Amino acid sequence: MSSRFRHVALIGKYQAPGRRTATGASDDVLEDIAAFLELQGCEVSIERSTADELQDCRYTALTVEEIGERCDLGLVVGGDGTMLGIGRQLAPYGVPLIGINRGRLGFITDIPLDNYQATLIPMLAGDYEEDHRSLLHAQVMRDGVCVFDALAMNDVVVNRGATSGMVELRVSVGKHFVANQRADGLIIASPTGSTAYSLSAGGPLLHPSIPGWVLVPIAPHTLSNRPILLPDADEISIELVSGRGASANFDMQSLASVEIGDRVVVRRSDYHVRFLHPRGWSYFDTLRKKLHWNEGGS
Amino acid sequence: MSSRFRHVALIGKYQAPGRRTATGASDDVLEDIAAFLELQGCEVSIERSTADELQDCRYTALTVEEIGERCDLGLVVGGDGTMLGIGRQLAPYGVPLIGINRGRLGFITDIPLDNYQATLIPMLAGDYEEDHRSLLHAQVMRDGVCVFDALAMNDVVVNRGATSGMVELRVSVGKHFVANQRADGLIIASPTGSTAYSLSAGGPLLHPSIPGWVLVPIAPHTLSNRPILLPDADEISIELVSGRGASANFDMQSLASVEIGDRVVVRRSDYHVRFLHPRGWSYFDTLRKKLHWNEGGS
Amino acid sequence: MSSRFRHVALIGKYQAPGRRTATGASDDVLEDIAAFLELQGCEVSIERSTADELQDCRYTALTVEEIGERCDLGLVVGGDGTMLGIGRQLAPYGVPLIGINRGRLGFITDIPLDNYQATLIPMLAGDYEEDHRSLLHAQVMRDGVCVFDALAMNDVVVNRGATSGMVELRVSVGKHFVANQRADGLIIASPTGSTAYSLSAGGPLLHPSIPGWVLVPIAPHTLSNRPILLPDADEISIELVSGRGASANFDMQSLASVEIGDRVVVRRSDYHVRFLHPRGWSYFDTLRKKLHWNEGGS
Amino acid sequence: MSSRFRHVALIGKYQAPGRRTATGASDDVLEDIAAFLELQGCEVSIERSTADELQDCRYTALTVEEIGERCDLGLVVGGDGTMLGIGRQLAPYGVPLIGINRGRLGFITDIPLDNYQATLIPMLAGDYEEDHRSLLHAQVMRDGVCVFDALAMNDVVVNRGATSGMVELRVSVGKHFVANQRADGLIIASPTGSTAYSLSAGGPLLHPSIPGWVLVPIAPHTLSNRPILLPDADEISIELVSGRGASANFDMQSLASVEIGDRVVVRRSDYHVRFLHPRGWSYFDTLRKKLHWNEGGS
Repeated sequence: MSSRFRHVALIGKYQAPGRRTATGASDDVLEDIAAFLELQGCEVSIERSTADELQDCRYTALTVEEIGERCDLGLVVGGDGTMLGIGRQLAPYGVPLIGINRGRLGFITDIPLDNYQATLIPMLAGDYEEDHRSLLHAQVMRDGVCVFDALAMNDVVVNRGATSGMVELRVSVGKHFVANQRADGLIIASPTGSTAYSLSAGGPLLHPSIPGWVLVPIAPHTLSNRPILLPDADEISIELVSGRGASANFDMQSLASVEIGDRVVVRRSDYHVRFLHPRGWSYFDTLRKKLHWNEGGS
Repeated sequence: MSSRFRHVALIGKYQAPGRRTATGASDDVLEDIAAFLELQGCEVSIERSTADELQDCRYTALTVEEIGERCDLGLVVGGDGTMLGIGRQLAPYGVPLIGINRGRLGFITDIPLDNYQATLIPMLAGDYEEDHRSLLHAQVMRDGVCVFDALAMNDVVVNRGATSGMVELRVSVGKHFVANQRADGLIIASPTGSTAYSLSAGGPLLHPSIPGWVLVPIAPHTLSNRPILLPDADEISIELVSGRGASANFDMQSLASVEIGDRVVVRRSDYHVRFLHPRGWSYFDTLRKKLHWNEGGS
Repeated sequence: MSSRFRHVALIGKYQAPGRRTATGASDDVLEDIAAFLELQGCEVSIERSTADELQDCRYTALTVEEIGERCDLGLVVGGDGTMLGIGRQLAPYGVPLIGINRGRLGFITDIPLDNYQATLIPMLAGDYEEDHRSLLHAQVMRDGVCVFDALAMNDVVVNRGATSGMVELRVSVGKHFVANQRADGLIIASPTGSTAYSLSAGGPLLHPSIPGWVLVPIAPHTLSNRPILLPDADEISIELVSGRGASANFDMQSLASVEIGDRVVVRRSDYHVRFLHPRGWSYFDTLRKKLHWNEGGS
Repeated sequence: MSSRFRHVALIGKYQAPGRRTATGASDDVLEDIAAFLELQGCEVSIERSTADELQDCRYTALTVEEIGERCDLGLVVGGDGTMLGIGRQLAPYGVPLIGINRGRLGFITDIPLDNYQATLIPMLAGDYEEDHRSLLHAQVMRDGVCVFDALAMNDVVVNRGATSGMVELRVSVGKHFVANQRADGLIIASPTGSTAYSLSAGGPLLHPSIPGWVLVPIAPHTLSNRPILLPDADEISIELVSGRGASANFDMQSLASVEIGDRVVVRRSDYHVRFLHPRGWSYFDTLRKKLHWNEGGS
């Protein structure tokens, strides 16, 4: 009995309200990991929607809230999307997370399934690196009332409607007016999100310890509207000045419609996400692998 | 009586089917220009939807088709959007166009309203530069059948749906497979369109005489998916591999929904648009003004 | 006698060792400002190399070191280059700086010469915004010995030689290897420098309160070598792996040659620069003006 | 005896005047290829500087000029740099070229050494795709006199000096003024060069059949100075307005110093380079491989 984490929850897939992601782990893999955890002396529970997919699951099924209240560790088996979903939900409880990836490694699910046991044994014994990620807390304000409230680990994106032209957005930080931007949309990304959509839209990479957000306009009308780094201590307000059918999304996993005059307000959440990595882990190793640096290629 | 153009049509605004643009010219300006044209010896007609906006119009109202068949010159009073709309419609008839802009000069409406008479007099007398612009001919093919057919002067854009993630597009040129691209969308822009949406999305500027299109991915997942110039002699095919709610638009003025398996096929139209400019006009002068080059600024 | 700053130094131009910048203020302007400062009750001195340019200067000439030791405020009359030079030199003394610009406003010299008196009167009386800028402290290390040591307010740039191809640079942060980069060069820019060379090379804008540097590769061979934000708490090391004739420069104002095996080591200086701005000043107002945002243009 | 090419020259490395590239083929490989060519019925010669590296070479050594006059095919064994060098020199003679690459495939040396025989047999028999590449002809003009004259297959680059700031360049096309650009430099790239330095500096990809050049500013001061495609029928003139120590290089293989007032004049060469590829070759296959498209990665 060597694990410092007494009660471990296994989480196999993220179920966004109303849709299913296709990144879940199969029965055998989860059974195998659960048995391994028991051998390490852990009590094992399974996240409820993950358990629903399993046949004859002999472990206790817990809701995400119950995991938050009762468990000492969450072990996510899936891709970055699964990790994002569960990370947001568990952040208020402070439960740390480890990510095992079945396919290609992700930016935040960095333990390969092959030979996972050798990697987990020292981690369960307390030998790991801990990495805290900030969370965006976003609200859609309409006539002074909050009509939508969401956390995001990667990004908050205000988008034009599919069949209309640009949106015009009035951006402020704290009490300061920044600019009116006309673009397809605007991404407010955390350091975690800087390797996701923000990167595709031309944003820079942000080390996880940078206490800021990057605002990245998508196809901006004014060429000098470049990505800008703002301190996460200040509240950012994005007001929709013009544009039909606009919407805001949060980690591309939840969605709110945005009407003219609405403000999408983003501040740093009081919560953060705790990722545990194997000893010797380096953020830069992940960047090099995922971005194909130093492969001798073009 | 000096004009080489016997019958001139005045076009004040572009009416996209089902919506109105806000760039039209007012009564007085059009009356003033019409009177000037008569003084130059021209027969003057007014485009029908433009005439509908005028009170007590004493000139013949013609449909765009009638203009194409009967007139020797179209004089567009408005912005670039008006010019795009009428340019596409008149292209099959070979009627040349002159653009007068009331507000800030456009890329293709390059004569300021102030003192327009001094500019037009030599042009009507035959002293002008002629500039031909290629047109994109696009079709949406579904199960081998063409379900949408449109011309575009600026660009054909295949877009993701507003509430879904990336589209995956299979791009081919002639018989050659180019790439599968995952992105927010893909722009196929003509030289004329290279200063519009394509530029915002990171595309290069194309001199009007370049016989090619530029394909510009919007927020591409793969960072090395860079804009690519293709000869306009070859047919380009964009097949929607995945993505819900996708659509294609043409000069941002008409729209078709695109389903999985549909192909958007783009080829060079047999028609082109004829723009007339004042003697001494240079494409680069327009670029410098519109892009604020050489203003001593940052 | 209303100034809170008893002894004010006037600085008219930055003299880089061995060359002269052309941004200095003329006699009349400096005389005029000096007389105004005396009226406000200040003792006025003039920076020595500025004084050398004046005829019949009746104020005490002080070296930069003497200004640092004796003065309560530096008033810089010139452009951003002058401010960078004097800011670096005065940083160890903690003397605050105000920048008056004769021509187009700069990013850090933000008070126009016209009507400067109305702006300065409340500032001298203590009504101002204070803005601290971090400084880069760079050393060139060769065989374990420091062969060059410099401060920079904007940026440290490692460059290829003019007549050779790319440099290859091994980048580390603290104990972590980041990447081997092949490029024309690499810029390490502070928030202050993010609006200078870094911006031209594709870097993002950084709010001055971001405690980080941005590393921007110049024309990188690997397309996914994107700008990256690193915390300024960690030491950055850039080792020259290959490339003939390479050099490092600091604010483009001093220069060191870099040989293969040399490391350019950058850390946050213990000093910072204190800028004073008029009450109501906003960093974003400067950005909008300098970058021509919201001008209704393309 | 099946080869349609009677006399084939083997070229193993490009020797720039005064320096050696490191991409040459070793004795054994060249001997092996030469023997294979003889078996196909070809007369085999060896380029002189390649032969000088071989021990006991039993084939006739020919200068590049002699190859141009006497041979029916050049077989280049090396990398893209070797191909560029020999392509420029053989272009006036119209000798077609085949490229075999020993290491990673290049953009223009696209036959792998492994199993090269199976690829070459049908090509020698006349079954190949032919691909013509345009050449830039550049001259440095000083006081009306040509002081340097060079061909380039990839690019002509005007650069700032290593220890000075930006250059200012006055760009014209034909009789038209384009812009004054302040930047680290300016690249004029052919379609062939669009995958080389131009791509690193932010330029688009150009299909080889595009009859144009792309002008790509390097780290331009003005953010709207974007890459621009110009027809290759017009002469491009780049005048150095300011900047010390500037130079022009041609395929990064030859170099000229450029003084203030000098003009670098670029026009399309009357020659072109003939590349032969295996039947079924596609330019896009090369792009996908070299740019790591469709690898399922980030």
